[in-house]
Amino acid sequence: MTRIRDEDTEVENDIDNNSMLAAEPWRIRETAFDPASAFLHETLFTLGNGWIGLRGTPDEGTAGAAGRTLEGTYLNGFYDTEPIRYPENAYGLARVNEFMLNVPNAKRVAAVVDGERFALDSGRVVAYERTLDLKTGLVVRTVEWETRGGKRLRIASRRLVAFERKHVAALEYAVTPLNFAGTVRIVADIDADVTNLQAGDDPRVGSALTGAALIETGREIGARDVLLLQRTRHSGFTLATATECVVSGAPAVRVEPAGLGHAFEADLAEGATFTLHKYIAYASSRDMAPDACGPHARAELAAACAAGFDALAREQAAYLSGFWNEADVSIAGDDALQQGVRFNQFHLLQSVGRDGRTNIAAKGVTGEGYEGHYFWDTEIYVFPFFLFSRPEIARALLQYRYNGLPKARERARQMAHTKGALYPWRTIAGEECSAYFPAGTAQYHINADVAYSIRLYLLATDDFDFMAAQGAEIVLETARIWTGIGSYDRQGRFCINTVTGPDEYTAIVNNNTYTNAMARMHMTFAADVAERLRAERPADFARIAAAIGLDDAEIGAWRAASAAMLLPYDEALGIHAQDDSFLAKQPWDFANTPSENYPLLLHYHPLVIYRHQVCKQADVVLALLLLSNEFSLEDKRRDFDFYERVTTHDSSLSSCIFSIVANEIGDRRKAYDYFMETARLDLDNTHANTQYGVHTAAMAGTWLGVAYGFAGMRLDGAGLRFAPTLPDQWTGYRFKVQVRGALLDVAVDAAGTDYRLLRGERMSFAHGGTPIELDAQRAHIRMETSQ
Amino acid sequence: MTRIRDEDTEVENDIDNNSMLAAEPWRIRETAFDPASAFLHETLFTLGNGWIGLRGTPDEGTAGAAGRTLEGTYLNGFYDTEPIRYPENAYGLARVNEFMLNVPNAKRVAAVVDGERFALDSGRVVAYERTLDLKTGLVVRTVEWETRGGKRLRIASRRLVAFERKHVAALEYAVTPLNFAGTVRIVADIDADVTNLQAGDDPRVGSALTGAALIETGREIGARDVLLLQRTRHSGFTLATATECVVSGAPAVRVEPAGLGHAFEADLAEGATFTLHKYIAYASSRDMAPDACGPHARAELAAACAAGFDALAREQAAYLSGFWNEADVSIAGDDALQQGVRFNQFHLLQSVGRDGRTNIAAKGVTGEGYEGHYFWDTEIYVFPFFLFSRPEIARALLQYRYNGLPKARERARQMAHTKGALYPWRTIAGEECSAYFPAGTAQYHINADVAYSIRLYLLATDDFDFMAAQGAEIVLETARIWTGIGSYDRQGRFCINTVTGPDEYTAIVNNNTYTNAMARMHMTFAADVAERLRAERPADFARIAAAIGLDDAEIGAWRAASAAMLLPYDEALGIHAQDDSFLAKQPWDFANTPSENYPLLLHYHPLVIYRHQVCKQADVVLALLLLSNEFSLEDKRRDFDFYERVTTHDSSLSSCIFSIVANEIGDRRKAYDYFMETARLDLDNTHANTQYGVHTAAMAGTWLGVAYGFAGMRLDGAGLRFAPTLPDQWTGYRFKVQVRGALLDVAVDAAGTDYRLLRGERMSFAHGGTPIELDAQRAHIRMETSQ
Repeated sequence: MTRIRDEDTEVENDIDNNSMLAAEPWRIRETAFDPASAFLHETLFTLGNGWIGLRGTPDEGTAGAAGRTLEGTYLNGFYDTEPIRYPENAYGLARVNEFMLNVPNAKRVAAVVDGERFALDSGRVVAYERTLDLKTGLVVRTVEWETRGGKRLRIASRRLVAFERKHVAALEYAVTPLNFAGTVRIVADIDADVTNLQAGDDPRVGSALTGAALIETGREIGARDVLLLQRTRHSGFTLATATECVVSGAPAVRVEPAGLGHAFEADLAEGATFTLHKYIAYASSRDMAPDACGPHARAELAAACAAGFDALAREQAAYLSGFWNEADVSIAGDDALQQGVRFNQFHLLQSVGRDGRTNIAAKGVTGEGYEGHYFWDTEIYVFPFFLFSRPEIARALLQYRYNGLPKARERARQMAHTKGALYPWRTIAGEECSAYFPAGTAQYHINADVAYSIRLYLLATDDFDFMAAQGAEIVLETARIWTGIGSYDRQGRFCINTVTGPDEYTAIVNNNTYTNAMARMHMTFAADVAERLRAERPADFARIAAAIGLDDAEIGAWRAASAAMLLPYDEALGIHAQDDSFLAKQPWDFANTPSENYPLLLHYHPLVIYRHQVCKQADVVLALLLLSNEFSLEDKRRDFDFYERVTTHDSSLSSCIFSIVANEIGDRRKAYDYFMETARLDLDNTHANTQYGVHTAAMAGTWLGVAYGFAGMRLDGAGLRFAPTLPDQWTGYRFKVQVRGALLDVAVDAAGTDYRLLRGERMSFAHGGTPIELDAQRAHIRMETSQ
Repeated sequence: MTRIRDEDTEVENDIDNNSMLAAEPWRIRETAFDPASAFLHETLFTLGNGWIGLRGTPDEGTAGAAGRTLEGTYLNGFYDTEPIRYPENAYGLARVNEFMLNVPNAKRVAAVVDGERFALDSGRVVAYERTLDLKTGLVVRTVEWETRGGKRLRIASRRLVAFERKHVAALEYAVTPLNFAGTVRIVADIDADVTNLQAGDDPRVGSALTGAALIETGREIGARDVLLLQRTRHSGFTLATATECVVSGAPAVRVEPAGLGHAFEADLAEGATFTLHKYIAYASSRDMAPDACGPHARAELAAACAAGFDALAREQAAYLSGFWNEADVSIAGDDALQQGVRFNQFHLLQSVGRDGRTNIAAKGVTGEGYEGHYFWDTEIYVFPFFLFSRPEIARALLQYRYNGLPKARERARQMAHTKGALYPWRTIAGEECSAYFPAGTAQYHINADVAYSIRLYLLATDDFDFMAAQGAEIVLETARIWTGIGSYDRQGRFCINTVTGPDEYTAIVNNNTYTNAMARMHMTFAADVAERLRAERPADFARIAAAIGLDDAEIGAWRAASAAMLLPYDEALGIHAQDDSFLAKQPWDFANTPSENYPLLLHYHPLVIYRHQVCKQADVVLALLLLSNEFSLEDKRRDFDFYERVTTHDSSLSSCIFSIVANEIGDRRKAYDYFMETARLDLDNTHANTQYGVHTAAMAGTWLGVAYGFAGMRLDGAGLRFAPTLPDQWTGYRFKVQVRGALLDVAVDAAGTDYRLLRGERMSFAHGGTPIELDAQRAHIRMETSQ
């Protein structure tokens, strides 16, 4: 089992990038089937709904060779466990890994003519097109295929994973004989012979699991329906996979069982179309009682069948129309970029859990990289996108952390904290799953990152009900860790020792600036929350304080520690030191590092990397963004200049942050260049590992790059503000922001910025320092764009 | 596989300490067989000769339950390999583990009467005594046993592992019917059904190996002899295990094959003694060609048989007489302590490799703890004992490091050093086997430790031939690492970042005082060696310089870095900081740490420990000893006082160093108390894990505690000197020191110290500051003992 974050992996030289994908604003379109890019495109064409994820493999099953394809079907947060074994053990190391399972492939369907089963790599593919339509949410594939005997067919399929029906997916498979009349067979079954990728020595892959993790506990095969019941080996969850097929377009269809499915056969006239609709449901005991999974899956199927595929497709389009109306980021003047931006938003929507028990994995539901784990990526990268476009999803993400509090408390005890809660660095169901603590558990900043997202949520929604119900308890319990691990030095400064900041090329240091600054924010916020709660909701305050044993002295200790927090600053250089010792280290010898030695982690021992002044990703620079009003513009300029020189951006979480801060300090060229490195990262496979899954944090970084970056949006104690600029390469861009129930449209072009209140009674914000208030009477204003 | 250093393990509450072992100055003696202490006593009664190690299990095979006994037979440095697998991988981590194998038990012999096989836990043991005699080197056991049928026998056995015959062990097994006449059978065979201990979740044990690691490649069973040939699974070594039996005392002995051995049967008169001598040889392809192992073992056996057991026993006694004459440390006034001190010296002699390819394992050849690995323990703890008593063995230990240079160069390249050599933190044949780099590979001080031992060797022997042949190359190649990892800070101070010092409760720090001070010594010594070599042996210098590409600039860089070396010092406290950040950390809360929470490593996550001011072992305090003349007495006092308060001595390498420095600063009570914690550590099983093997470093620490501690001996650039004191608890003590071929006897009593030149032309040294020179004319002087 090898779990290096897979942005750190070697370039896969034999995976083609997708220059063959046309730059279309609302679509991703393949016009030929190329085995060399199939693996990558399986990821790109993944469909999901926050729970189910179906990789974009062919309907007929994967066509590529082993290691060149991944028949992946995932359920966000549906996991098994395995013990973590260390070659040299120590107390308190993460003991159990949770990993997202590859579940049975229920979408398999294939046409058979004269005993020849259609596959993209057999017979002759005469014509081929596949489209992912970001407005309809469907993947549509049209193929013309000639059998070895010269019979030609058209096979047209459509696929969807229903946004409005958590447990349902559906597909349409239509076969038309083009130059013959005769028998056509369609086989539709469930492929339960699936396993997770094996790790071996390959650092790109997730799990050490060998063999099947799901044990069959029952199956029912009806006339046209199948119910498969399974149980996970260690975690003990039940999974029901159910399918039901409906055929049409042929006069007398013969049906016979075929494995976990059926074969449908009909005699067709030339030009007649034989259509199969397959409805799929997955239900698991993560959501319901084990015994309810089968019945629930059947009920969902029945409802889907009753509605029919076209109705599901209409539902899907309507859902997406609503989404794009409130979330779309449009960019004028660069279709490829526009495509990348929307593709990223679409995948975020497909990947994010909405039920309070699931979250958004580093790879969404598109692949097994990072084993389906959730990281701080959620709070710091993904959360703002949903907060400002789908706040109910943002709230569900916070609820997920609330549900994780009991395990975070347990973990805190294991880490010798007598009180408080420490969130796991990587997890599915709340267990710390990081098997390399120097770049895992040591990243205590996860606690502050969660608190930061709650602070942002409160600023954007004013939803103090949530605070009273859940948010305050998270913020208070997690804040306690800082006074637990921190201490005052002889100069009376509050220090936080022996942690790792966001930059994973530096580990186990003292006074990481990011961590200290975020901890200061966190403790101040915790004290504010406690006091506001006491004032406004005394009963809630009393209940929480009693439950967690909070007293005034502790609140006072947070204020004091915040006030005394040490942020290491180098007077000679005029910059914030990443940590106490960062500036004393030797600069990395970039001049003598060949390009093939990046990412460094794959070519240098951690000690070699840790010994040098070199960053994998934004660290201080991220603090400049998140705590924007705590740093002067001059600080930002100097810090940016310094850290840019020592940062490799080996992490996909880095470029978007540098783009945003470059915008703030007025470096338009760098802002644009860094943004472009993020926006099509997956579409262009620039990190060379998208075949194993998309990079959800970088996808969200694209949204951040537009809103926080080019539009200069910030929301903090100083209020909501914008400072839009327009890159020379674009003619304009536009996005929307939801704040406190109001929806604001922001449209920037060369001459100015239009702010339009689309919904809600009023919205107050600033434009480049000028306060603006829009309301029903004055719902629009145009401001000059700064240059 | 769990490889926490096993001094860090939990107290085994159910292993009895050996209060039943009488305090006798030259013997370890059991007077009853107690299953509860059998496991521990197996370790204590181990016999070895630096290559073979036979645990002190009964002749008949182990009698205890699984997990309560360990039938262990070891050959120092005879290992197999296994891949090291990490749950989260990174570049350059140790990839292959070398581990010492448990080899076939060739010493098994048992009496059988009426089909009843003698074992200590069956029938009735009427009388029992077992003695390890430190003068003869034999273990002698006498048992009277009664069968279930009431037949009583005396079984007397003697066992030895020949110091003068590397491949040979032998035993005598004599059976006497005491109350009957009749048939007695003696079965003597090889038990090849042995495996290493399995690790599981037990952190005390060494290896993840499952199943047998040795594959049989042949066997020859003769009339009274057996040859078993095996091959290791991965490392591919050949092992020949051979036995030959000679019986006497019975008129007509019937012989028949029995497994890998024979059964010898005779009809005995009451009171007649039937004696079997079993000669054993182990030969391996670590020492010779694979095909030669069998013939060599047979030849060794033939010679041993020809000599006979009594001759081997006489050889053994003669060898030990020579050893004790030159190495004995005697202490008057405390028999238990005297026993402990000699027991320790004896085990060191039994454990140390002498062939330049083997070294001394942390557990010697007495157990599998640390998998038979060699550590810095050799150079810093064990080496001085041999240097001053058996310098040829000390030289062989250095030769071992010379033979490890090619692998150390390879390792340096893996660690991104373009030149130089980096020794592995733990190894058998030179591969880095440390699977937890923060407390393994990060301990770069191993390089300086090796250089320190070479410097001491040169001071004690003046053997510059060795330097020209091997020593210089080691010192120069290893010194290069310091300029590789070190750098100058803005104040022009030479810094060494991102290393771990000796104290394993603090990891990955900058400017560890021990490391920096030792690196300074190392670079200065390297420059001195290079210049002396160039002056005295220009051809050797030219050869080495050409081979390793050494130039004057590099020598100059060592001088410069040494001169500019930063030793972190806290002016306010007046102490050396263990590293840049140690003093900024929170003190460990000792007051609220229950005693069962020691050793801390088994009860707190590494991050918790690393975050606090707490030491596992001597670190700065060790530097005060090793580089004694670089620190003032006042520095030593303050440093000792400070670090004593934060040191847990959870490592068995700690107390002896604190004892020595306590002596130097005049704290006689602490010097005595710390010494007593070391001297009987294994005999009294105070670390509660001696059942898994002795602690060779602590054993050597006992010698250091007498010579360096009570006698105040130092040898450095300022010459040899003593400053003896006498603990109130003793009436006197005496030890010998070999320097430059001369042998000095040092005898301390309440009134004074007698120095006596026993061999050699002259010896110069100082006594409490007074220079003394002894020679043939004036071979003795008595000096007043300081109080």
